[in-house]
This record gives sequence, C-alpha cells and structure tokens, in this order.
Amino acid sequence: MRAQTVIGSQLDQCGESVLQQAGQAVEKREKLFLDFLGNPTLPSKGYDDSTIEFIINKLACMDANNNPDSCGAGEREGRVYSGIVKRRHFGLAHGIGRSGELTEVQPKAPGSSLIQIITTKLVKQAIKVAGLQLGMLGGVLVLPVATGMGLACVLRVIALRRPKSRYVLMPRIDQKSCVKCVSFTGLELVVVENCLMRDQVSTDLNALETTIGRLGAENIAAVVATSSCFAPRGCDNICAIGELCQLYAIPQVVNNAYGLQSNVVTKQLNEAIRRGLVTAVIQSSDKNFMVPVGGSIVFGADVLCAEVAALYPGRASISPLLDLLITLLSMGAVGYRQLLQQRIDCFKALKEGLCLSHRVLETPSNDISIALVVDPTDDMLGARLFHRSVSGARLVRMGQPFGTHHTAYPHAYLTVAASIGITMTEVRKLLALLEKKKQK
Amino acid sequence: MRAQTVIGSQLDQCGESVLQQAGQAVEKREKLFLDFLGNPTLPSKGYDDSTIEFIINKLACMDANNNPDSCGAGEREGRVYSGIVKRRHFGLAHGIGRSGELTEVQPKAPGSSLIQIITTKLVKQAIKVAGLQLGMLGGVLVLPVATGMGLACVLRVIALRRPKSRYVLMPRIDQKSCVKCVSFTGLELVVVENCLMRDQVSTDLNALETTIGRLGAENIAAVVATSSCFAPRGCDNICAIGELCQLYAIPQVVNNAYGLQSNVVTKQLNEAIRRGLVTAVIQSSDKNFMVPVGGSIVFGADVLCAEVAALYPGRASISPLLDLLITLLSMGAVGYRQLLQQRIDCFKALKEGLCLSHRVLETPSNDISIALVVDPTDDMLGARLFHRSVSGARLVRMGQPFGTHHTAYPHAYLTVAASIGITMTEVRKLLALLEKKKQK
Amino acid sequence: MRAQTVIGSQLDQCGESVLQQAGQAVEKREKLFLDFLGNPTLPSKGYDDSTIEFIINKLACMDANNNPDSCGAGEREGRVYSGIVKRRHFGLAHGIGRSGELTEVQPKAPGSSLIQIITTKLVKQAIKVAGLQLGMLGGVLVLPVATGMGLACVLRVIALRRPKSRYVLMPRIDQKSCVKCVSFTGLELVVVENCLMRDQVSTDLNALETTIGRLGAENIAAVVATSSCFAPRGCDNICAIGELCQLYAIPQVVNNAYGLQSNVVTKQLNEAIRRGLVTAVIQSSDKNFMVPVGGSIVFGADVLCAEVAALYPGRASISPLLDLLITLLSMGAVGYRQLLQQRIDCFKALKEGLCLSHRVLETPSNDISIALVVDPTDDMLGARLFHRSVSGARLVRMGQPFGTHHTAYPHAYLTVAASIGITMTEVRKLLALLEKKKQK
Amino acid sequence: MRAQTVIGSQLDQCGESVLQQAGQAVEKREKLFLDFLGNPTLPSKGYDDSTIEFIINKLACMDANNNPDSCGAGEREGRVYSGIVKRRHFGLAHGIGRSGELTEVQPKAPGSSLIQIITTKLVKQAIKVAGLQLGMLGGVLVLPVATGMGLACVLRVIALRRPKSRYVLMPRIDQKSCVKCVSFTGLELVVVENCLMRDQVSTDLNALETTIGRLGAENIAAVVATSSCFAPRGCDNICAIGELCQLYAIPQVVNNAYGLQSNVVTKQLNEAIRRGLVTAVIQSSDKNFMVPVGGSIVFGADVLCAEVAALYPGRASISPLLDLLITLLSMGAVGYRQLLQQRIDCFKALKEGLCLSHRVLETPSNDISIALVVDPTDDMLGARLFHRSVSGARLVRMGQPFGTHHTAYPHAYLTVAASIGITMTEVRKLLALLEKKKQK
Repeated sequence: MRAQTVIGSQLDQCGESVLQQAGQAVEKREKLFLDFLGNPTLPSKGYDDSTIEFIINKLACMDANNNPDSCGAGEREGRVYSGIVKRRHFGLAHGIGRSGELTEVQPKAPGSSLIQIITTKLVKQAIKVAGLQLGMLGGVLVLPVATGMGLACVLRVIALRRPKSRYVLMPRIDQKSCVKCVSFTGLELVVVENCLMRDQVSTDLNALETTIGRLGAENIAAVVATSSCFAPRGCDNICAIGELCQLYAIPQVVNNAYGLQSNVVTKQLNEAIRRGLVTAVIQSSDKNFMVPVGGSIVFGADVLCAEVAALYPGRASISPLLDLLITLLSMGAVGYRQLLQQRIDCFKALKEGLCLSHRVLETPSNDISIALVVDPTDDMLGARLFHRSVSGARLVRMGQPFGTHHTAYPHAYLTVAASIGITMTEVRKLLALLEKKKQK
Repeated sequence: MRAQTVIGSQLDQCGESVLQQAGQAVEKREKLFLDFLGNPTLPSKGYDDSTIEFIINKLACMDANNNPDSCGAGEREGRVYSGIVKRRHFGLAHGIGRSGELTEVQPKAPGSSLIQIITTKLVKQAIKVAGLQLGMLGGVLVLPVATGMGLACVLRVIALRRPKSRYVLMPRIDQKSCVKCVSFTGLELVVVENCLMRDQVSTDLNALETTIGRLGAENIAAVVATSSCFAPRGCDNICAIGELCQLYAIPQVVNNAYGLQSNVVTKQLNEAIRRGLVTAVIQSSDKNFMVPVGGSIVFGADVLCAEVAALYPGRASISPLLDLLITLLSMGAVGYRQLLQQRIDCFKALKEGLCLSHRVLETPSNDISIALVVDPTDDMLGARLFHRSVSGARLVRMGQPFGTHHTAYPHAYLTVAASIGITMTEVRKLLALLEKKKQK
Repeated sequence: MRAQTVIGSQLDQCGESVLQQAGQAVEKREKLFLDFLGNPTLPSKGYDDSTIEFIINKLACMDANNNPDSCGAGEREGRVYSGIVKRRHFGLAHGIGRSGELTEVQPKAPGSSLIQIITTKLVKQAIKVAGLQLGMLGGVLVLPVATGMGLACVLRVIALRRPKSRYVLMPRIDQKSCVKCVSFTGLELVVVENCLMRDQVSTDLNALETTIGRLGAENIAAVVATSSCFAPRGCDNICAIGELCQLYAIPQVVNNAYGLQSNVVTKQLNEAIRRGLVTAVIQSSDKNFMVPVGGSIVFGADVLCAEVAALYPGRASISPLLDLLITLLSMGAVGYRQLLQQRIDCFKALKEGLCLSHRVLETPSNDISIALVVDPTDDMLGARLFHRSVSGARLVRMGQPFGTHHTAYPHAYLTVAASIGITMTEVRKLLALLEKKKQK
Repeated sequence: MRAQTVIGSQLDQCGESVLQQAGQAVEKREKLFLDFLGNPTLPSKGYDDSTIEFIINKLACMDANNNPDSCGAGEREGRVYSGIVKRRHFGLAHGIGRSGELTEVQPKAPGSSLIQIITTKLVKQAIKVAGLQLGMLGGVLVLPVATGMGLACVLRVIALRRPKSRYVLMPRIDQKSCVKCVSFTGLELVVVENCLMRDQVSTDLNALETTIGRLGAENIAAVVATSSCFAPRGCDNICAIGELCQLYAIPQVVNNAYGLQSNVVTKQLNEAIRRGLVTAVIQSSDKNFMVPVGGSIVFGADVLCAEVAALYPGRASISPLLDLLITLLSMGAVGYRQLLQQRIDCFKALKEGLCLSHRVLETPSNDISIALVVDPTDDMLGARLFHRSVSGARLVRMGQPFGTHHTAYPHAYLTVAASIGITMTEVRKLLALLEKKKQK
C-alpha cells in the first residue's frame, strides 16, 4: 500500500502497527468513497459529518471549475466571487442539468451530475424505508423546485400528452399554492366541493363524477388528489378517485406534500399504485426529509419523469439536492426509521393528551394534523400561542371563506400537527400551554 | 453605553480608553446592521466576510425556527436535521415566499423575507453600477430559478394577459433552454431565421415582420430577443425589433442571460427601455454576478413583476438570493465596477491577441464571445483544449444543424469568451495554448 | 425599540406581531450577550452552536486587529494571513496575556482578555458541578499548557518561595511527564516507592517520611501526590500525605490529571482542602472537559495563582481557553452533570461485566481505570485489541521496569478505563471483544 | 483507474473524455497528498484553501479518535464534546508529543505527529526563503509555546548542561517577557547596560566583558542577545558578543523574536552562525509568519533541539503548529517572498515619509522599528493615535525608568514599525495622521 510506505518515510521512529493503521485510515475513506460511488446506498447507520463532507468534497473536485489548473476561457459561469458562497456550496457552481435537460450530464460538472444521480438513488431507498412501494411509479425525479412548482411541471407534461385538455379537477383544498400550480400551467382549475363524514372533510365522489361528466373527460388534463392537509380535512380517497379516473381515462396526480411520513396515506398510496390508479405523486423534500424549503420529489413512470426532466427549461440550483443528499447520508436508514416512529409516537401522545381536555375532531384519515374545537368568540387564541413561541398552530374561524376546505364547516377550530422531527418535549410543552389556556 | 459598562465590570484592571474602544466595537457592528437594514445599500467598498456573516446571522435569527424557545407544534417544515445543512444555510429553513405568492412576507420567517427584499434593493443598485437605466422597467424581481425557467415564468404571465395568444416568436438562437422555456409554458415557439451581416449572424427584421403578419399579432404572446450569445451571432437588434413590436402591439421580452456585463448590449437596452420598446428583460444571476447557477433577475414594470411573483406556485429555495446578497455585500460597488472593467480589458487583450495569429470573425455587436475560423478538418481541436484544462471553448463545425444560429454558416469556428471574473493570466494562457496549436 | 422600527421600514406589508417577534429576536441575542458578559455564568442547559458562535464573534470584534478601520502601524502581530486560520480562531490573534503577565489585560485585545476571564469564571462553576469544594484554593488559573507543563509552572513558583529547596518528592508514578515536569524546573526528583495493599499499589507513608527525614524538609520544594492514574495504582493518600507535609511544613501539590471526574478523588480532595493540607491541584482541561490536548487548570490560593501567572514568560495561545469556553457553554451544567453520571454508570457496568469472566484486580481507590489479570505469556493481546480499533487499553507485563508503579508487581495485567465521554455502546463492545479473546 | 470506472458506472450517458477528467480529478488530489507526504515541500505557489483543508483532513483521519469504528475503552482524552471545537481543529484532539517527549510519535495520533514533522520541514524551507543559512544550527524545533516560554525552555536545557551556572547575562532590553523567561528557569538575570552610538542604543561590549569577569564565566549559563526590538535600540552586535562568548566558552542565545523578516538581522546572524558564534536562536511564529500568538521556533544543533524536546514535560497543543502549516501551504514560497519584499518597501516608504516632517532617530541596525522625536510635553499623542485606530504605535517619555533600554535616553519619542503584512495603504494612512498631528 502506497499510503503506508509514504507515511513510514516520515514517521521512521514508530512501529509497524501504527504505520499500518495510519495507512489503512487513509485508504479506508478512499475506499468508502469509491464503494459508495460504485453502488450509492443509503447507509444503515448515518455517516458522521466529516465523512459526509469528505464525500461531497470528493464529488465537487470533479467539476471543471474546481480544477486549480483550469483556464475557463469560454466560461460564462462557474466563477464564484465570494469565499463564503464557495464554501457553503463546497465549490459546486454549475447547478444541475444542461441547457437541454434537467437530468442530462453536464460535461463541465460531472461531480454535480453525480450528486443528482446519487441523490435520486438514495431517495428511492429512503422511500422504501418509509414503507412506500413504488412499483410502476419507480422513475423517481428530484426537482430543485418546491412542491407547488413541481406539481406545475408534472401537470404541464400531462397536458402536453392530452392536447385537448383545458381543465384540472381538484377536490377542494384551501391552500393557495394548490390553486397556483394549476394557473401557472395555463390550465383552468375546477374545484370539486367536499362532503362531511361526521367531523371529517372528505372527497365527494359523486360531485367529482358529475364534474367530469359536465366538462368532458378528454378536456380534463388530470384530477389532482391531496393526501396530506390540515385537519379536519382528511386524505382524499385516492383509490376511489383513481377508479373514477380509470373509468374515464383521466390521469390522477397526487399532491402528497408531507404524506411520506403518514401511515394512513402510505397504505392508500400503496394500494392505488399497485392497482395502477395513480399517474404521478409529488411530495416536498423539506416537509418529509427535514431540509430547508426548496425541493420536491416526483414519483411516476420512467417515461413521465424523463418528460418532466426534458421539459424543464435549462439548469437549476443544486442546493436542494445537495441538502437532501447530505441529510440522507447523515440520517441513514436507521435514523430515518427512528424519526418516522418518533413522529407516530408523538402524534399518538399529542392526540391522547388533547382528548383529555378538548373536543378533538375525529379525522381518521389524517394522522398528522389534529383539529380541536375552540370557542368561536375567542379571537386572540392564535396570537397568544404565537406570542408564546408556538409556531405552526392555526386558528380557523367559522364561516371563513377560505381555509376550511368546506362550504360551511360547523366548528371554529385550532389545528396542531405532529410532523417528522417533532419531539416529546414539544408535545408536552404544547399540551401544557393549551391546558393553561383552557383554565383561564 | 451599556456594552462599555458591562465590559468594564469584567475588565476592571484596564484603562478607560480600552473599555471605550471595546464598547464601541460591540456597538459599531450592531449599528452597522440597523443602519444597513434601515436603508439597504450596496456598500461602496465591499464588507469583509465576518461582517457579512454577522449580517446574515442577524437576519436568520429573526426566523421562528431559529428561536431556541420555540415550540413548532404545527410546523411541517423549518426543522433541519443535519448540522452541515443548517450551517450552510445559516439556519434559514423557510425558503422565500408563502403559499400565496413568491414575494409575500412569510410570518414565520421575517428574516428570510428581509433577505429577499434587501437582495432586490441591492440588485437594483448594482444594475446602475453596470450602467443600465431601468426607467419604467424598475420593478426588479429576483427569481430563485435560473434564466430558462425565469423566462418561462414571464412568458406565462404575458400569455395570461393576451388570452388569444398561442405563439412565441424568436430570432433563431441555437440554445436548447431558449426552446424549452417556451414549450414549458404550453405556447408554441416559432423560430425566425437570421441573416448574415458580413461575418455576423444578425436579426432578419423582414423575416420577423413577415412571420408576425402570417401568424397574426394577437395570436403572438411575445417576441423574445436574445442579447447575449456565442459569436458569430450578435446581440439582436432590440430597438428595431421593439419598433416592430410596438407597431403590432406585441410585447418584446429580452433574454439578456449574461448581457449585464456587455457595453454593447447595455447601450441598446438603455435606448430600447427609454423608448418603451421592451416589456421585460431576464438575466442570469450566476452569469452576471459570479454566484452558483440557480437564480435569475427580471426587469419589468412593477405590475408585471407583481404578476410573476403572484403566479409563482408556492415557496422556493432562498439559496440563490442568499448567494447574491452575500456576493454583492462582498464585492461592493467598487469591486463590481473593477470586475466589469477587468472583463473589458481582458476581452480587448484576448481579441487583439487572437487577431495576431488567427482569422477572427467580425462580430461588432458581440463584445463577450469571440469566434475564430478553424480548419474544418481538424476534429480534435476541442478535445485537445479540453485536455489542457481549457473549459468553455466550443468548436462548431460547418453544416452542423444546431449550434450556428444560421442555416448555412460558411465557416467552422472556435468560440472563446471573456466573461466577468476572467483574468489576464487566463487570457495569456489561452493565447499561448492557441498559439502552440497553430504551430503544430 | 429601534430594531422593530427598522425591520418595519422594510417589511411594511406584514403585521405588528411579526415585526415585534423579529425585533425581539434581534434584541434577545444582544441582551443575552450583555447579560452573559455582565455576569458570566455556566448555563444550566447548554447553548446551541449558533448562540455560542455569536458570543465568541462578539468578543472577538473587540480586539483591535478585528477593527476594519484599524491601521496597525506598529503591530508586530495580529495580522493573520490565512483565511482558514482566521476563521478557525474567530479572528482572535493576540493570544492571552501581555509581555508582563499571563493574566494581564492586553489593551489591544480586550476581547481575548475577556475570554480568559470568562473561561476562568465558568471553570469555577463547573468545578462545583463536579462536586469539588475549593475553599481556600479558589484562585483558579486556566493555563494554555497541558498538565505536565502546568505542574512545572507551579513547582517553579513554589521553589522560588523556598529558596533552599532542591528536591521534589513523589510517590512513584510511572508516567514520564511526571518525571519531566520536575526536571524541567531544574529541581531534582526523588521517587518514593509504593507499597501493596492487597492488589492495589498504594502510598508508602513510612517511606515518604523516611525520605523527608533523609533529605531535610527545608531542602524539599514540594511533595507531588498523584490522584488519577492507571490501575492497579490507586489515588495517593492525599490526606495522610498532607498531614505529613503539614508536620514538616512542606507544600503538597496534587497532580489531579483526570481526577475531576472521580468521586473517590473528589471526596479525598475535599477533605484535604478543607483541612488545609493541599497547596495546589493541577488537572488537565482535555481529560476532564473533552477538549483537545493543550490546557490545564490550577487550583490554589489567589496569591499562588497570581504568582504563577506573573512568572509565566510572555503571552500564550488562546486556543485551549477558547476550546474550554465553547465546550462549557455547549455542555451547560446539566450536560456536564449527565456526562459525569454516565461515566459512573459505565464504570460500574464495565467493572461488573469484566468480573464475570476475568480476575479483576481490587483497586478501591481507583474508580476510573480497571486492571484485569492476563496470561503473562500472551504477548499479542495488546496488538490484537489495537487491531480491532480498541485504543487506550494497555498491556503491562510482569517485571517490566517502568509502568507498574511498583518494584515487583505480581501480575501481568491489562488496563481499561471509563473516562468522561464513554458510552454504554463502547462498554458493551469492549466486553464483547474481551469475552471473545477469553474463549479463544 | 478505478475512480474512472466507478464514475462511469454512474454517468453512463456521458463521453469518455468527461469520465477521464473526472477520474483524474479524483486521483490528482490523492496523488498530490501522497507526493506531498512523501516529500513535504513548501509549494512555490501557495495552495488554495480547499486543497489545504483536504490535506489536513487527510492527516487528521489517521488519528485513532477519528476512526468511526474505534472503541476508546481506555482513552482519557481524544473525545471532543463540541462540534464547533471538533471542526475548528479538524478533529485533531491528541495534541503533539507523548508523555515522554514533545517530538515523539504518538501511536494513537500518527496524523498529529505527521503535522509536527511536516511543519518543521516546511519551516526549514521557509527560513531559506527568508535568506537565513542555518548551517550547524539546522535542527529546527517548532514549539507550541510563544517566544518567552521558548527561550525559557532553551535556557533551562543549557543550564542543565552547565551544572555550575546560575546567571543569564543580557544586554538591556526593556521588555518584561525577556526578564521573565530567565526567572522562570530559576536562574538569575544580570542586565548589562547599553551605550549610545549617536541616536542608537547599542551593545556595550566592555560592560559585557566586565560583567563576565565579575561573575565568572562558568557561573554564567548563557548570554542572551536581542536582535529585534523597538527603536532607538538596535540589533545587538551578535558577532562581537559571540566572539566574547567564544573566548569565555559561554553559549550565546539570540532572542530573534521578529527578526526573520529583517535583512540587517539576517545578515549578522548568517555570519555569526557560519563562524560558530551562536548556540541557539529563538523566534516567534506569529510575528514572522502571520499566525495567531502561540508558537515559537528554535534553531540549534540537532542535539540541542532534541534535548529541548526531551525536557518539555508532556504533550502540548497542536494549534500553533497547525496554524503555521496551513499558513505556509497557503503562502507558498512566492507569497512569503512577496510579503518580505513588501515589508521592506513599506519600511522604506514609511521612513522616507516620516523624515520629511519629523526628526527620525538614526538607528541603522534596526530596519523594522522607527523612532521619531516628539514634543516631550505632549502627553496625549499616544491616546490620540489609539483613538484614530492606530494600534501598535508607542509613545516613550524621557526619563521613563523602563522602556528606553537605556539609563538616560535624551529624547521623548514615538515608535512605529513596518512588520510583515503591512501594506502601503497603512503606511499612507499613518503618514497622513502624523502629518495632521504635526500641523495642529
């Protein structure tokens, strides 16, 4: 081994076994890198930060702009001015993609291209850990844009496939980005009102079928179902929607924003995918994998993913993919599994705790968000929580035109949630704060 | 001053003047931050890295997820798993925008929102340094997507304003992302062939007018002119195109990818903007400001920028804006001006040097890229340059169907370029390499 | 509040409560810093990394070399060439101390001087968490040199106080740095052999008294007792040695290298200090507080610490103090207490586990290191452990002239240890490895 | 090449030349590391930061505590608590040296040991760049303590060689650390008063010889000459002192604190070393190589350096060596040479500028510090400079008992200096400030 010999040439006074260990240490990391690159695998136990930085640096040094001898005589990019910026991107400057296509290899930046390829492979493996069986939707595409824009990209591709299509149907979901992702494509959004199943706001399949009939199936680009949302809305009935879509030959697209962490959603998705009832699923990278906002993940047939990548105009930031890669390497399968379980435990504890002192709305197909009935005259509750540093709790008033996912929801309510990353300490703190509130 | 008193309570043995200096040092940075925030200004001389990090950290601590006491009980994002990721984003996790709109203030993330606002203000000031007078197009919008997608966003908004429109016209530009940015919108691209003015590939105004007539002005969403491109194509004749557009009431959009650094382009743009002949200009943040690929900048009327921001579906990564902010603070006006001048000097030296030993194609309206005639039978030139670590040089063969911006360009040529960030050392190295080549 | 107003001037579209939160966030950190500086306190719960970096950066900006406007026209130091070096020291360049004295305030570097003062205060508080009552030895001095050199500094000061003294007495401890710390002072080391109390190598008080008598008390600078060491040596009998020293008016200095974490040692030290039987105690900062090697901590009367600081020739690196400060802020009292308890639990589990399959030597006054009897003919045990990445285990052969702390220890043995930072996972791994060993 | 094959297995769509470049990039750094380690060389042109961090990380991974699989079952150090601390030391935790000796290889930390060895080799090469010819003093030792303590270490070793010695002689130098470095050893300092040669405070050789005679040569451990100091004191007459020392067989030690950058000093030292008139030279690492305070460098015969290393009690911080290594790799020989030349140019410009408006004291054997006569009644000058952020300028009053290096220096004066790292901008600023002063 060369490393050991070279070390020995400097450390002449020390024993053979020390040299051997030092030499092995040097070559171990090198081997780890090549092994990893040869077969990019979500590690079982996550890597430590220094190993991760080693891997990223190694990949970055393949890009032409990080070649100290390079002469960028025709370059119009890849020159980074600020040392802070350079460091925070590990010297990666070319983004991902090429003028032609988002997933094409950039000849000037093979390292960046590898990051894209590796991240995609690791995401596929992480999805299995989350319990999702992608089957025919196995052509995972990680997009460097957030869920809303990711949905727009997919809808645009589907619309191109269905030249007559002008409409997108969507069981009502009161979040603006769901509206905008359709209008951005130039298509027209048609909202289908929901019905109530006891407390839960649920898909109205009759209304959906009526709307399809009214508009004409061939004029509809897709039905977009929403799987993860604020209670008291539940996960849409993906299988039933899919059956309708199958009947009318309309693609179903699932907006699965933060649904990867939900057992209820995953179970439904698995069945729907197995039965061929879903064309594409889009989810957030930040809401499911604890990275900053900015990326999304598309599940779809290989050809669909290829079409989305091919339609994407030009290059894009590597940042969301890099964050995801670093995070998956750091979590490992074991860490991710633990986080998923911890969330489930927290959801259970939160729900049980809330039930002790509040009327909690029954929303069996939502196992992330919880809605509890509040005094409709208490205007200040939300502000009070905000002031006590409880962020994310949302107060919804009765008769509010937008926000309840329903024309006339019969309660004012507060929503809280147990998302991935939540801890029991937070659950206890929230329960204590809401308890105090109650007593006042 | 409290700082001085507190320091004095610990450093009791030292003199008054030391205490005063220490107290002032503490409060100076604080004041710098508040002054900067109160009136965000591109500094004349750039800040040092530690001051920049101080400013970013200060902004980041305003976001709810960086409040150590917060209880993110309803949060579905803002929890960052990896320490590496947290550090590289200064703890910023919420991206920019809100479900509703890209430029809306995110209540959970006022610091991130401020970064967006400040970056925009600084970009406006930097543009003045580059010599551009925005006039009625002063509603600058910094987009967290690269130029291609930025163009798509603008075209989509313009198409919504012109309900009958189906086409986008574009004087031929052989770069795939220019094609894709149209197809992504669902509109149809109609390419207008160029003509030759001696060596230079130039806008064919007759062909453009004929095409407008053929398709019908109201069916055309916009004409997209390209200002920065590989020689021997020159900058499109923006003023003349604008006059035609004005005549037919069609918006002109300029793809100004890396044109901010070009005097030729800036001069034309200034005239066209002053005369109201341009609706929007889109340029790359990376190609003009030496940041990694991932952002673009839109110039347009306030209302247009607002419409683009409003149409953008959901949130987006803050990364491209953060890079731009850090870089502008680091460059300062003086540094940016120097880089612009250095580029001009390098271009001049490169062109003069090449003219000594090559036939350089005359392209007066391109002052960034240079094309030199090469032996059409020399297949290996590009590869040879690549192997000598010359990246960015591009070899174009005769009769190549895509790449020459022309149906029958009469030369094989090599393009090199002098973009912002280039140094005289690189120019000399390139000249030496090409000289060697020649001799062989 | 100015911050809120300024933020409001930029975020004009957002609500009052958001502005208030953002303004408070900005001022909260500022207040935290001034509060901390006004009364430097070991936090109960440790600070997060970004708060710690904020504090250090704040202190660093007080030093003249970090003043961006400064003109270092007479400076012979404080200019740092490498950005890497600057960053890793937070811009701190002046070290600690002044030409005159190690603890004197450096007028050019009040921030560095404050780091020294604050670190000392925090160390005093941490020591209380560890259960030590310093009483009359409360003049803590943190030295930027490791334990061996720290001991030398103290011995040198004591020797100056006792002009006739030529010898240092030391119950035998077979570690070279214990020998060297005496020879470095120019004094002569006189080793007092130990006796056996069953398995344990223990202080031979008779031999010590005999030696004192032989050399003459006034010729002896100090007796150095060792409290933490490899089993089967135990902690020296500090109280009994102290009584002898009191009788003969000789100072006792305790080499407490890693004893802060030991209950057995702390109990003895508390009694000895209370009874005035100890002049100084020196311990390692790295071995007790999980920082890199390089610092030590002296406990002694205020006047002794002042004399040591005054004798230290010139300035010194701030690095060991900075590491200690960062670490204490990060641990907090709670974290430190947990680590101490975890070590105790691990020691217990390790000892119990080893007893199941080995003959463990009984060393009641050593609750960190454990020695187990091994086959004296097995030469390869140490190497085998080393090869399985067990570092720190030490194999001692019978009749070895140096290493057993005794003239004729009757066993070959292997030492392992449970030091602060050890985890149950490591304990289990070690037990499993030694078990395997046994079976072979 | 394995790297290329592995990359190709992922980047299957891209061309051979891209794979080759990527593979080469990966292996190039690896090769650079092994080449560097096999023959540690001060690079001609300094390395970029990312290459330097790569090298340090590579070395750090050899240490046992950075082995992710290790089980530190007996470790009492090497566990680093804080992520900030870990990162700032690249994971290096073991310091340098072993219980036994400062330069012994630490089996648990071969990487740290290599850093020590490599730094020493690079320092030797840098010294040649500075123009010093070490000849028989080629046994360079880099100490992790600053100059004062470094001097103490050397004097202690020399005293051990001369068992009768009790005194250290020193031509008067009014800096406290020069006094303390002797008292720390337990030896007695005897100051020899200086004489005046016109303006310059100079060595009084007669007084020195008289003192030697009075004390008896064999009772003198060493004569310590000072080469770099504040004007109007000049560099001691090292050759003449050396001749006296040779005559009386007393070692001469040179305190060369910041003299490596001085041509006047280097010239004298070269002659003295060549003629065998010097036993050891000690200089600051921070004052000569622009690193933070904390290290020093000893030149001496191999055997002297070995004795110093052997006497040093225990381990020490690696920080000062690491800073030096990083800085030398970053400067390269070219950068260091430029800095030396720049200092000379600045000194010349400063002196010439000052001469225009002040009476500058003539001190031909001091080419770093400059003293200018000031109005003895102006008490506030120093404070005024301090307030204008001029740090390092020193005001010396007439009749001041300590500070003038002379019993009765006939002027009040201000000292300024041109040390390594100074820029022409600073020189101009200082000249402007002093000019203003004058006019007032």
